[in-house]
Amino acid sequence: MQSFGQIILASESPRRQELLRQIGLDFAVKISGIDEDIPIDLPPNQLAEHFAREKAHTVAVDYPKQLVIGADTIVVFDGQILGKPKDNEHSYQMLSTLSGNTHQVITGVALQLRDKNLDETFHAVTKVTFNTLSDSDIYYYIDTYNPFDKAGSYGIQDWFAVFVKHIDGCFYNVMGLPLAKLWEHINKLR
Amino acid sequence: MQSFGQIILASESPRRQELLRQIGLDFAVKISGIDEDIPIDLPPNQLAEHFAREKAHTVAVDYPKQLVIGADTIVVFDGQILGKPKDNEHSYQMLSTLSGNTHQVITGVALQLRDKNLDETFHAVTKVTFNTLSDSDIYYYIDTYNPFDKAGSYGIQDWFAVFVKHIDGCFYNVMGLPLAKLWEHINKLR
Repeated sequence: MQSFGQIILASESPRRQELLRQIGLDFAVKISGIDEDIPIDLPPNQLAEHFAREKAHTVAVDYPKQLVIGADTIVVFDGQILGKPKDNEHSYQMLSTLSGNTHQVITGVALQLRDKNLDETFHAVTKVTFNTLSDSDIYYYIDTYNPFDKAGSYGIQDWFAVFVKHIDGCFYNVMGLPLAKLWEHINKLR
Repeated sequence: MQSFGQIILASESPRRQELLRQIGLDFAVKISGIDEDIPIDLPPNQLAEHFAREKAHTVAVDYPKQLVIGADTIVVFDGQILGKPKDNEHSYQMLSTLSGNTHQVITGVALQLRDKNLDETFHAVTKVTFNTLSDSDIYYYIDTYNPFDKAGSYGIQDWFAVFVKHIDGCFYNVMGLPLAKLWEHINKLR
């Protein structure tokens, strides 16, 4: 018997919901509504964990008996943090910057269960290498897939997969949740 | 305009069909019916390419004006080739062998278009590292997911994802088609 109630996912990302279904977890979704645009001067790993913790915390205060999962994914290239693109131009800039190069995807994850004083945070890093993208590839992708809800402006699980030459780390981390690490943490709580 | 007719996928794998849909290719499925159990003394890379070519060839002779894709995926651990498990016991042996270790997944791909004398073969290798699996994890997985149609006896895209600690290479290669390499080859033919 697990010692926590139904899991709450504090994220509106449809990819994260799909991933939790893939690994058979029963969960509800509650959206934290925190503003990720506030610039905070932290190293990338800590920044991803910070936003994950903020998202989990906002929801956990209302559901103290349930295990709340918060997560935040960022893309880092050449020391620069890429979040979600604001518009077509921003999306083009991100994808042309990442073209032909290797970047890091970092997902921070927070687990909170307030009635048991559980408050854990961790992150995973995956290196992703793109083939060279032509301008027409980039424009086609932006127009067809509208990747404005995705850090780095691409979805590794959609058509964009054709440009992903290599990954080094957890694939699902790039989609939004490092499944193997998450599973280890959740199993310890059962 | 592409210079080949509708693509034919010479594979009954539902994962390969899903992957071609993901990257927006229009295709039909024709099953080659070749016997993969015939032992052939070839190095793993060549073995995967051999079976891919056999599958493509069997279908291509009947559809000479269409681009036919054949593919074959094998798992290699410690010099030993693991194909599809024959039964529960064989599946248990494979998964307990792979537990806590790193193995290689090799997918051979063949492209044939007989009327244009097109006959290309290539392969991709991805290293996959598993966390340690308990016997109960293995039995639960076999009983629930019946992984008998999968080389190495696991599907990286199902619940088993929770045990995949790390991959190094193309993720989709593990599912059955190295999408980025395949895309490069197909684009050269358009």
